[in-house]
Amino acid sequence: MAPKIYLAGPDVFLPDAIDVGRRKRELCREYGFEGHYPIDDTAPVKEDAAEIFRDNCFLMRQVDIGLFNLTPFRGPSADSGTVFELGFMFALGKPVYGYSSDPALYRDKVAGRCGPLLERDARGWDRDGHFVEEFGLFDNLMIACAIEEAGGAVTMVAEEGERSLAAFQAFEACLEELRSRFA
Amino acid sequence: MAPKIYLAGPDVFLPDAIDVGRRKRELCREYGFEGHYPIDDTAPVKEDAAEIFRDNCFLMRQVDIGLFNLTPFRGPSADSGTVFELGFMFALGKPVYGYSSDPALYRDKVAGRCGPLLERDARGWDRDGHFVEEFGLFDNLMIACAIEEAGGAVTMVAEEGERSLAAFQAFEACLEELRSRFA
Repeated sequence: MAPKIYLAGPDVFLPDAIDVGRRKRELCREYGFEGHYPIDDTAPVKEDAAEIFRDNCFLMRQVDIGLFNLTPFRGPSADSGTVFELGFMFALGKPVYGYSSDPALYRDKVAGRCGPLLERDARGWDRDGHFVEEFGLFDNLMIACAIEEAGGAVTMVAEEGERSLAAFQAFEACLEELRSRFA
Repeated sequence: MAPKIYLAGPDVFLPDAIDVGRRKRELCREYGFEGHYPIDDTAPVKEDAAEIFRDNCFLMRQVDIGLFNLTPFRGPSADSGTVFELGFMFALGKPVYGYSSDPALYRDKVAGRCGPLLERDARGWDRDGHFVEEFGLFDNLMIACAIEEAGGAVTMVAEEGERSLAAFQAFEACLEELRSRFA
């Protein structure tokens, strides 16, 4: 039976979210997996936050693998809902993988989105006077280290344009990686 | 024995992070709790990301309660490391509580930080063309609903200025709430 993958990410906020989800599920099938995306066109749109929350948690408990779209969303970090789910699935001990269409280091993402860093005491600070962690990682260390610690991997392929938030190229690269490990 | 609280938040990125942590631990003591803050002045500064990650996870497993500073950080949402930890502790089934110095609704936080929303099809969209969820919540639904679902609470007290990221007023209000439930 095809391993089940939970597809987490800010893709659900794209205008063509349903199509993106359909295409990602198709790609999962092509690579030997069963993709599960939080929204689709076969069920009515859920309007109740608590119901969506419980459904997502239920789904994360059912699947074998978590695949997280960690492309920056409304700031230099990944989408907060996605990051919550990463912490949740990591704690459950499930394999977790990530992908992103922005391969820059976190410090450069902060500089790019919040303005140039200020150097003081040999450390970088953002415009609000907050320290910018510099571990040579693509995002906050809890995100990057969780995936490392769980034995997963993060694939990053630079993409620009309207659909860059969906990060299809990095997504497919990650499915390649997953196939070599699980299929 | 005083219940142990894990103190999560972007406070660690403040220039006076050590002092903020010391003060928050003191306040925990005053309210009958034992506060645990990821960094302090009794241990050498850790330079290895994987070590910090493991220490934080170890600490989260040891404590009785998670208390999360959900003040927006580098965008309209809470700090991503903090949100990861919320997902982690929620999955462990521990009580989780939140506090913030920005009581605005998420849609207004997005508008305030990313520019006015565009209305289309009776929904709000940000400047990048991404849908803004509107459930009347203070942040992404996964964050707000997790705390609700776990039986926790979120306290919010508006604060401005340099130390607003530490959200001391909302922090103390949350300790009040915690004392009435646990102490």
